[in-house]
Amino acid sequence: MKDFTFCIPTKIIFGQDKTITIGKNIKKSIGDRVLLVYGSGSIHENGIYERVINSLKEAGVEWVEFKGIRSNPVLSKVKEGIELFTKENLDGVLAIGGGSVIDSAKTIAAGAQFEGDIWDCFIGKQTIKSAAPIAVVLTMAATASEMNPTAVITNEVNQAKLSITSPALYPKFSILDPINTFSAPINYSMYGAVDAISHLLEGYFNTNAFQLPIQHTMSEGLVRNIISSANVIYRRPDDYKARAEVMWAACLAFNGITIAGTGGSTYPMHMIEHSLSAIYDVPHGAGLAIIVPAWLKFNLNSMCEKIAQFSRYVFILNIEDDYDAAIEGIERLEQWFKSIGCPVRLQDVHIPVTEHEMIATNALVIAKQWGMKNYSQEVIERILMIAAAE
Amino acid sequence: MKDFTFCIPTKIIFGQDKTITIGKNIKKSIGDRVLLVYGSGSIHENGIYERVINSLKEAGVEWVEFKGIRSNPVLSKVKEGIELFTKENLDGVLAIGGGSVIDSAKTIAAGAQFEGDIWDCFIGKQTIKSAAPIAVVLTMAATASEMNPTAVITNEVNQAKLSITSPALYPKFSILDPINTFSAPINYSMYGAVDAISHLLEGYFNTNAFQLPIQHTMSEGLVRNIISSANVIYRRPDDYKARAEVMWAACLAFNGITIAGTGGSTYPMHMIEHSLSAIYDVPHGAGLAIIVPAWLKFNLNSMCEKIAQFSRYVFILNIEDDYDAAIEGIERLEQWFKSIGCPVRLQDVHIPVTEHEMIATNALVIAKQWGMKNYSQEVIERILMIAAAE
Repeated sequence: MKDFTFCIPTKIIFGQDKTITIGKNIKKSIGDRVLLVYGSGSIHENGIYERVINSLKEAGVEWVEFKGIRSNPVLSKVKEGIELFTKENLDGVLAIGGGSVIDSAKTIAAGAQFEGDIWDCFIGKQTIKSAAPIAVVLTMAATASEMNPTAVITNEVNQAKLSITSPALYPKFSILDPINTFSAPINYSMYGAVDAISHLLEGYFNTNAFQLPIQHTMSEGLVRNIISSANVIYRRPDDYKARAEVMWAACLAFNGITIAGTGGSTYPMHMIEHSLSAIYDVPHGAGLAIIVPAWLKFNLNSMCEKIAQFSRYVFILNIEDDYDAAIEGIERLEQWFKSIGCPVRLQDVHIPVTEHEMIATNALVIAKQWGMKNYSQEVIERILMIAAAE
Repeated sequence: MKDFTFCIPTKIIFGQDKTITIGKNIKKSIGDRVLLVYGSGSIHENGIYERVINSLKEAGVEWVEFKGIRSNPVLSKVKEGIELFTKENLDGVLAIGGGSVIDSAKTIAAGAQFEGDIWDCFIGKQTIKSAAPIAVVLTMAATASEMNPTAVITNEVNQAKLSITSPALYPKFSILDPINTFSAPINYSMYGAVDAISHLLEGYFNTNAFQLPIQHTMSEGLVRNIISSANVIYRRPDDYKARAEVMWAACLAFNGITIAGTGGSTYPMHMIEHSLSAIYDVPHGAGLAIIVPAWLKFNLNSMCEKIAQFSRYVFILNIEDDYDAAIEGIERLEQWFKSIGCPVRLQDVHIPVTEHEMIATNALVIAKQWGMKNYSQEVIERILMIAAAE
């Protein structure tokens, strides 16, 4: 066990119809006036917007709307939000959405209390010391941004998809109402499950963490739970139990609990995927469904025993030989991704081999920022080649 | 999944030699003057006291000593602590010890800000609204009191062992330095492991929680981890890795994460054990090693499938029939308790059958306070009979 500090101050309010408590919770722990950040407007169609607004009105909370956050959210949009927040002199930010909306809200909250260009914090030139308080109504289970201190934003000028992390970015509270995920598009619901699984895998296969029973049994269990519940959601998008399981599992998958004591995770799959989705606007989880099996195949020899352990537990394989078990586990995972409608090859999302070099060059910028010295241009290109193999 | 609210504000500072950061952490988040609460004085022998004191001095933190907390800590002692805290007008409480010391420190911290008799909060006549800030240097892995909002105290006048729970009782921070558990007596180290396992079992076998994959896979994994690491500690008390595993697993076992979404745990094993240790001063974990197998045997028929699932996963049993698997699992658990030096029958701690009635009468008071309507005098006596069977 490596040394660690663990503290998650975010309050999770989980359950059916908890959305209608948003107003009084904001009044209690944030203030009277908030920036209401959301995405494409689907919350107008599925009733979430109305439930939130009614609750805000009832509690006497005023709001200024800031909508139109897209997946793979971009810096220019976030900067508009910071400007609006500052102009309106608001008390905090309320995000209604999934990872993209929450990450945008976090960056706006940080930017509102930061002098200068907030991008400087993404490229490591400056650090975030404070942020306006953040509240969340989660509508998509995937990134755990609702319970962690990180935000990922793409600078569309140079296609760099980078992140900020600070204790100031923990939401004050997050409402996890499984009903709010019922109307999420089924493909994005599945991408969310893949994203959550990839977070667990990156902690699990961190080479520092090869002998960590606590963290590993937690991760193995969560992967298994997510797969079985995502299968149910794929057939019945309004299955409360399955939606609730994935909502809480995705949160636990990346709130830090599965990597506390592992010496800190590295994120090689995300590193490569961030490059994909920054350049091609592939949905993040879809990109991961392509990269995860390729990364596992690339590491088959160096991590054979560990991949075998994972495979045996998650897919209940009765295969004695490590290599065979590992191969079978990777195959099962890839087939599962396909079975829930995810792409598993670069050509499935129309990315040609001729562009691997450019993708790798872009990924390398992230690898450097994240301190991942093992990943050269060549290594990344080799993983991309595996991701393109017929 | 049942509705839940989840928030653990306690900061865990985990790792080798983190004890020497106690001074600066107190200065930062508690204040300049603390009540130093500890137990029998063994911390003078194993160097922990010296490490703490030097760190306090270095940081300019003053302290007033309050020592002599025993296992199954008593109300009269705690009241002395409250008096001393108030007289000295201190900023907070620093507990150096295991569950008994931390629970005493929490009650002192609550009592210091409570008008009237603090026992009124234990019997439900009053509630705790605030407490002085609490810091912990943990020396015994067992109760998770270092990361939860609960304290258990025995009123020696009427032998009632009762608890208080309040968000105000979360420690501000807890230092978990595995080295501090190296010198813990081996029997108490094992009792601690049993206590942690019983916390997990009580959540797991909560009848509300029969279909909860996330919580269950976490609990199954933690039980398995605790058993395998406790086995190492039993042979090599200074094995850092095993001490670290148990320290973190015991914390996760009862900080609320394994029961979030289960509709709240009930504590039937603790209910009966509290009566044992209040009357006979049996160490808490030793009492649990007697009660846990008896409680499982009592519920063999009503919870057969669930006990079988637990047994198959934890002891890797390849037994198809549920009843046979359940029986085998209980037997393995009991044998394991014996193998690490724990009593498993009431007569092992010299409690005669003639006193079952009195124990049950006492336990019933706790059952009522905890709202456990299924536990009549007769039911408790039947479990005690099983705990006394040859």
